[in-house]
Amino acid sequence: MGKKDEGKGGFQLKVPKGTKDWDGKDMVIREKIFGTIANVFKRHGAVTIDTPVFELKEILSGKYGEDSKLIYDLADQGGELCSLRYDLTVPFARWLAMNSSVQSIKRYHIAKVYRRDQPAMTKGRMREFYQCDFDIAGQYDPMLPDAEILRIACEIFDDLGWNGRYTIKINHRKILDGIFSVCGVPQDKLRTISSAVDKLDKLPWEEVKKEMVVDKGLDEEVADKIGKYVVRKGGRELLADLKADDTLFSNESAKLGLENMELLFNYLESFGVLNHISFDMSLARGLDYYTGVIYEVVTEGSAPKASSAGAAKAKKEGKPKNDDEDRSNDPSVGVGSIAAGGRYDELVGMFSGKQNVPCVGISFGVERIFSITKSRMEADASAKAVRTNEVDVYVMAFGGKGFDGLLPQRMAVAKRLWDAGVKAEFSWKVKPKLPQQFKAAETNGVPFAIILGEEELKAGQAKFKEMGLPDGHPEKDGVPISMENLEKEVKEKIAKSQSSAVETIAAKTETLSL
Amino acid sequence: MGKKDEGKGGFQLKVPKGTKDWDGKDMVIREKIFGTIANVFKRHGAVTIDTPVFELKEILSGKYGEDSKLIYDLADQGGELCSLRYDLTVPFARWLAMNSSVQSIKRYHIAKVYRRDQPAMTKGRMREFYQCDFDIAGQYDPMLPDAEILRIACEIFDDLGWNGRYTIKINHRKILDGIFSVCGVPQDKLRTISSAVDKLDKLPWEEVKKEMVVDKGLDEEVADKIGKYVVRKGGRELLADLKADDTLFSNESAKLGLENMELLFNYLESFGVLNHISFDMSLARGLDYYTGVIYEVVTEGSAPKASSAGAAKAKKEGKPKNDDEDRSNDPSVGVGSIAAGGRYDELVGMFSGKQNVPCVGISFGVERIFSITKSRMEADASAKAVRTNEVDVYVMAFGGKGFDGLLPQRMAVAKRLWDAGVKAEFSWKVKPKLPQQFKAAETNGVPFAIILGEEELKAGQAKFKEMGLPDGHPEKDGVPISMENLEKEVKEKIAKSQSSAVETIAAKTETLSL
Repeated sequence: MGKKDEGKGGFQLKVPKGTKDWDGKDMVIREKIFGTIANVFKRHGAVTIDTPVFELKEILSGKYGEDSKLIYDLADQGGELCSLRYDLTVPFARWLAMNSSVQSIKRYHIAKVYRRDQPAMTKGRMREFYQCDFDIAGQYDPMLPDAEILRIACEIFDDLGWNGRYTIKINHRKILDGIFSVCGVPQDKLRTISSAVDKLDKLPWEEVKKEMVVDKGLDEEVADKIGKYVVRKGGRELLADLKADDTLFSNESAKLGLENMELLFNYLESFGVLNHISFDMSLARGLDYYTGVIYEVVTEGSAPKASSAGAAKAKKEGKPKNDDEDRSNDPSVGVGSIAAGGRYDELVGMFSGKQNVPCVGISFGVERIFSITKSRMEADASAKAVRTNEVDVYVMAFGGKGFDGLLPQRMAVAKRLWDAGVKAEFSWKVKPKLPQQFKAAETNGVPFAIILGEEELKAGQAKFKEMGLPDGHPEKDGVPISMENLEKEVKEKIAKSQSSAVETIAAKTETLSL
Repeated sequence: MGKKDEGKGGFQLKVPKGTKDWDGKDMVIREKIFGTIANVFKRHGAVTIDTPVFELKEILSGKYGEDSKLIYDLADQGGELCSLRYDLTVPFARWLAMNSSVQSIKRYHIAKVYRRDQPAMTKGRMREFYQCDFDIAGQYDPMLPDAEILRIACEIFDDLGWNGRYTIKINHRKILDGIFSVCGVPQDKLRTISSAVDKLDKLPWEEVKKEMVVDKGLDEEVADKIGKYVVRKGGRELLADLKADDTLFSNESAKLGLENMELLFNYLESFGVLNHISFDMSLARGLDYYTGVIYEVVTEGSAPKASSAGAAKAKKEGKPKNDDEDRSNDPSVGVGSIAAGGRYDELVGMFSGKQNVPCVGISFGVERIFSITKSRMEADASAKAVRTNEVDVYVMAFGGKGFDGLLPQRMAVAKRLWDAGVKAEFSWKVKPKLPQQFKAAETNGVPFAIILGEEELKAGQAKFKEMGLPDGHPEKDGVPISMENLEKEVKEKIAKSQSSAVETIAAKTETLSL
């Protein structure tokens, strides 16, 4: 399809930079991903909220630091100044601040957000893109909602058919703060040193250290102390090591973070998802508003070549998978993570003096999940072709000389099928030829045809044909079906074929669930 | 909920004018309406396309006449000039012009559009609002796609449980053009006289005539001739009358329109929906780009008081319902219609010299459908309460002195249910009290509870309780359930209760299908 064209009147016929039309099979795959994700959210009792695409400009200002320059403003056409939303978290916090009667909620929101960034479309970096957010607001016993969010992330990737090919890196802001404190980082350098640490997934320690010491003026001794902590990754054994570290554990912030983390490990074990977790002390996350546990989901497929070897090595050593592979070909911040989030207990309070609601949430990067899912589907020869529509039955007619097309009869059959809730189509030609009708059905992958003929109709019958049967199959040319019980017979045949398809899929665990 | 609030920093904590947050039961009802509508579209083989929320400014310009002043522009922050979409039709035509390999498609699109209009929120007139569009593009035999669109409209209102309480007014631009021509309207007054005629659903003929003669300078004789035609409404008998009118039928345009209309009546009869149709010669529709059949769906509930009497009268007389009731309390253009559309064969050609694709479509006004559906639900005492979440099972625990909350056990049961695809929740408290747990389940209308106790667990059992059973019911206090086959037993009990609920609903045809 030609995506750029000279329109009438001399202007370019195109969509704005960094945006795209979604159509065809891509749209179907994307809808299935959305459906899978929403289904998991609902399984955990979530409700959805829809906020406007634009907010008052002042609601967004002061929330995104340097990235505020990427916010799209609406033109001043008189009246309020507004901006397109930059994410779904700030509008949610604004909603919580406005609805003070809501003291707790699990909400999800799947919608487009807008960033005037330099687009890299093939990497899924766009100016208009979807986010799928799930957040839990409310006061609960520690780490229980946090654990459920990580469980939800695992269910989503399992339901998407990723077969365990993902790792959740977790860390805790209070542990990081404790480390910086006991190592001797001055208070005014906390955030800048934290963002240097966050680069450890792309740069070796030596370079990060150089940034700390040379660019940011940290004592080399302090940097070396930090280095001993933040390069560590692991599971429960790392947690035990850190708790045994008297210097660290005597720090109030670190102690609280480590105790939180231990609770979280226990809960994740109860939920059966601990095997997907990597406690990664280099994870710091960019946004300022996180106050507790933070996490990022990464996948082998989202990293460049070297990743498989690294993952295999980690697997061999029996440790949780980690994500320290070379990503130098993929330098954009956060491009490797397919979901991310954390606890933010103070954001709602930024909007309202009246109430503050603790929150924890996760955001799924759908464009990235889409790209990976699509390439895996293309690589999987056993996966079924994606159909763009869902029609079950194509109603056809055929006849010899003097054939009038049987249009009223085809319409009447389609009407009966629609009344019975069956998805059906017929040719919008008065006298269609049989090959044309077959071609139309085949193009859309319609699984069944009902073929009307004058002789059969006189006998109260039609022909029911399963499309695509091999030559020599006894039902290749179709089987008679009674016109009287048409709806019932058709629905039974569709249900039968669908249940056998489900069995086939269930028997092949490697098949993508799409 | 307080929707206006003073935010921190002195700014108003609110959404922009003419927009709103959707949450709670309203959101659930709206989602069900969207689901119902999309389901009907898919039943007819439609696919969906998603276009960006903003388009290049020049794509939208010159498409909406006077209303162009209502378009929202993005600020000029460097780069392309863009505007928020005003409807879904122009982006679809732009997409067709860009994708010249697509010669035919049935597409639906449910998305927000933007108009800087003076909002009237309670009437469903907003600055950000949803449209549900369905369009058929392609060259087919006359009136077949047109008939299917009207059939789709009927299926949607039937599936929404409106029980026939709607009427589709239809007319044809070529018939109108023929009438204006034979009555002697000068070529340069065609559109302005047409838009005067369109006001007949709100004003009596005398006032419309005055506008034509006094304001628009039409000969009174010409106006009187027009008047004889455009006040007429009816069905097949009106069509027969017009075909017998030699003056009119000798006009090429009118002849084509009337022949089209006769085909359409035949097809609508085959589709079993002719009873919902009113051939209304005053229907003209505002937009310039229509070239064939045009239609508007109206409902009793969308008009003020006088409507019921009028509809009852029409029913009594055995004629199709019409919509000539007094709407003086509701003067906004188009506010009475809940869906509208028509054939537009030349819009795609406005974007591309290369190809022109004939189209016919319909747009459903979801905010209006929402308001009416909601008020009908509230009036229907037999309708079930709307739940905001979909959780099936609340996992609880209870115990006597020294009760430790059974948290790991509750988590393990929740995990097993989630693994089996069951929607489940439990309290995020380490030691919750039983009444708190019941209250949480009842607040969300969760239908079932599993109650864990130490004694029962030792015996390999738990208690399964259907919520809300009346006092004295033998299962009021729950029944034992085996821990071993928990998932299977729970799923069977849920399925059983759902199928009996479906029977109850099916037995009461008056119940809304929501």
